[in-house]
Amino acid sequence: MRIIVAGGDGFCGWPTALYLSKQGHEVSIVDNLVRRKIDDELRSNSVTPIATLEERVAKWKELTGKEIKTFVGDLNHYDFLAEVFKQTEPDAFVHFAEQRSAPYSMIDREHAVYTQSNNVIGNLNVLYAIKEFAPECHLIKLGTMGEYGTPNIDIEEGYLEIEHNGRKDKLPYPKQPGSFYHLSKVHDSHNIMFACKIWGIRATDLNQGVVYGLHTDETEMDPILANRLDYDGVYGTALNRFIIQAATGHDLTVYGTGGQTRAFLNIKDTVRCVEIAAENPADKGEFRVFNQFTEYFSVQDLAEKVQKVAGETGLETEVSHIDNPRVELEQHYYHAVNTKLRDLGLEPNLLTDEVIKGILTAALNHKDRVIKENVLPSISWK
Amino acid sequence: MRIIVAGGDGFCGWPTALYLSKQGHEVSIVDNLVRRKIDDELRSNSVTPIATLEERVAKWKELTGKEIKTFVGDLNHYDFLAEVFKQTEPDAFVHFAEQRSAPYSMIDREHAVYTQSNNVIGNLNVLYAIKEFAPECHLIKLGTMGEYGTPNIDIEEGYLEIEHNGRKDKLPYPKQPGSFYHLSKVHDSHNIMFACKIWGIRATDLNQGVVYGLHTDETEMDPILANRLDYDGVYGTALNRFIIQAATGHDLTVYGTGGQTRAFLNIKDTVRCVEIAAENPADKGEFRVFNQFTEYFSVQDLAEKVQKVAGETGLETEVSHIDNPRVELEQHYYHAVNTKLRDLGLEPNLLTDEVIKGILTAALNHKDRVIKENVLPSISWK
Repeated sequence: MRIIVAGGDGFCGWPTALYLSKQGHEVSIVDNLVRRKIDDELRSNSVTPIATLEERVAKWKELTGKEIKTFVGDLNHYDFLAEVFKQTEPDAFVHFAEQRSAPYSMIDREHAVYTQSNNVIGNLNVLYAIKEFAPECHLIKLGTMGEYGTPNIDIEEGYLEIEHNGRKDKLPYPKQPGSFYHLSKVHDSHNIMFACKIWGIRATDLNQGVVYGLHTDETEMDPILANRLDYDGVYGTALNRFIIQAATGHDLTVYGTGGQTRAFLNIKDTVRCVEIAAENPADKGEFRVFNQFTEYFSVQDLAEKVQKVAGETGLETEVSHIDNPRVELEQHYYHAVNTKLRDLGLEPNLLTDEVIKGILTAALNHKDRVIKENVLPSISWK
Repeated sequence: MRIIVAGGDGFCGWPTALYLSKQGHEVSIVDNLVRRKIDDELRSNSVTPIATLEERVAKWKELTGKEIKTFVGDLNHYDFLAEVFKQTEPDAFVHFAEQRSAPYSMIDREHAVYTQSNNVIGNLNVLYAIKEFAPECHLIKLGTMGEYGTPNIDIEEGYLEIEHNGRKDKLPYPKQPGSFYHLSKVHDSHNIMFACKIWGIRATDLNQGVVYGLHTDETEMDPILANRLDYDGVYGTALNRFIIQAATGHDLTVYGTGGQTRAFLNIKDTVRCVEIAAENPADKGEFRVFNQFTEYFSVQDLAEKVQKVAGETGLETEVSHIDNPRVELEQHYYHAVNTKLRDLGLEPNLLTDEVIKGILTAALNHKDRVIKENVLPSISWK
């Protein structure tokens, strides 16, 4: 299958590109490399040293004989995107190429505008490019479980059967996103649903949980193939951030009471879920939503898990509670359905002590790279 | 009350600005005059001749002694918007300043991108300006009944009580908008709801039906104050378009079977609804949704009403059916709630034969201005 991985230089995109390439697919990466530039802007870095995209794909070719084409450019530049479609004739377009940090989108007006404009218009361009150049191409779009917020009813996969005043309909699941970033994904979902309806586009929206982990079998083959690992208050996600705090002797800082429950999955499952979606494309005109996570935990649970494993490794850490920079419920109902990917064959990598230990080991190997003043949150929702 | 009317040079904004000024409010108009430029782009015009904004407000001052300040500029330019907020210190911000034609947004990719970027980012800027310069200012935002689409259940005002698997919640009403324009309003609604939650902004989303009519008591005071009247396939809305077709001896062209049912209101009720919202502001942090319409009709019903009144005036017209350029259901359930504005005192101007005759008379007075090749739809959803 000819597959474009947009955002293929990023934390989820890079391992996905390698995995799909290894499975024998003809993979092209599209990326504007902005995530690397944001490291400069925020004076931040990945704990793991990461090679340039050029070095990465060259090493991959050297080790496997497989070629990954690269197109460095921006989805917001339609001429560029059109050229990519003409040259690659994709069967699937995997779309990771969005600004994906909630705190980054909340820095100030300019960052909110950048996030929504970049994500929404970039995605609109992808829809038009599919319509114009590859109408059979399957759009596999990364959404987020954060689109749903924390309703007091069960979260279904994209749609909800509603009975109201004696009548019934199956409607898009109501969305209550919690940042300008999460909102951008909700906007995308609505735009894609409409494009499927009017143009017959095939699309799968992967409402992904919080991703943890670092290595996949492919990124572990050589240090040049290593994946990035974020730990800072802007791009670091809960579990990875706690592990790096443990590795550097920092308290594990839980926002508020820590009762916030979120859906999680291992980066190894991210790459497999994308493969499953690609191998089982949506029908013509279908807008399909998969909830892409394997387990859910409260933030407090996660911190305690990390504390335990770190303790067994001889690292004493404290779980401390800091003012929550976000506006969110700290105690709430949470039950979300995730059966569609399981039905198609996903076998989850669950969050075992072994998994936490693996990430902790990688963090300890590079702990001298951690910029300590970046660890605590500096961006407030208010 | 100090009120900004953004989009105050347009079809709804101009009569609203006059009406609020007449009621004694201190009104400022903000407008980038783009609707006039779009007339040039589309080689289109208003059936009624319209004066410049400068002439309009000068005449208003001459007739009433009341001053309406004008700020010509774009909500997408934040420095400009910030300056407007600093100079006016608004108690209410009435936001009509969006690209408001569904067909225009469907012309091609560039028009879709323009519509979503202009509307969503402009509105984001307004939210940030309120937060930064006027945190108590009440945002009165024009949404559309088209945000809801045509679900098979009753349409409520913004929220829906849902019972699911034995649990209950009140959630944002699921949205199924039918064009990139309608989608932009859905994106706005989600962004505003979030801003209310995190910053305590007061907002009322007026989900307005299709507006018909032309005159208000104020715009009738002098030809220089006349409102615009669109009839073309891009900006003309159903009822007004039928009336102008009748006035110019054109068949009344119903899209498809004409079973599409939509909510309508008279422009005289638009201005009153905005006043009601302004006089009864939302609470701090409240995101309130009013469905702003008075009646609903199928498109076929409307055509037949116009045919009847035109016939009584001696104008013989045929109702013809043309291919539907839109992708939409032509037969569907439609029942929408609109009690909140009524409860606050709205007394509807219903669609009587007299009302149709009034618009028809205005159209006949200016029928030589109609550019006939603009009447039929030229933009397809596919």
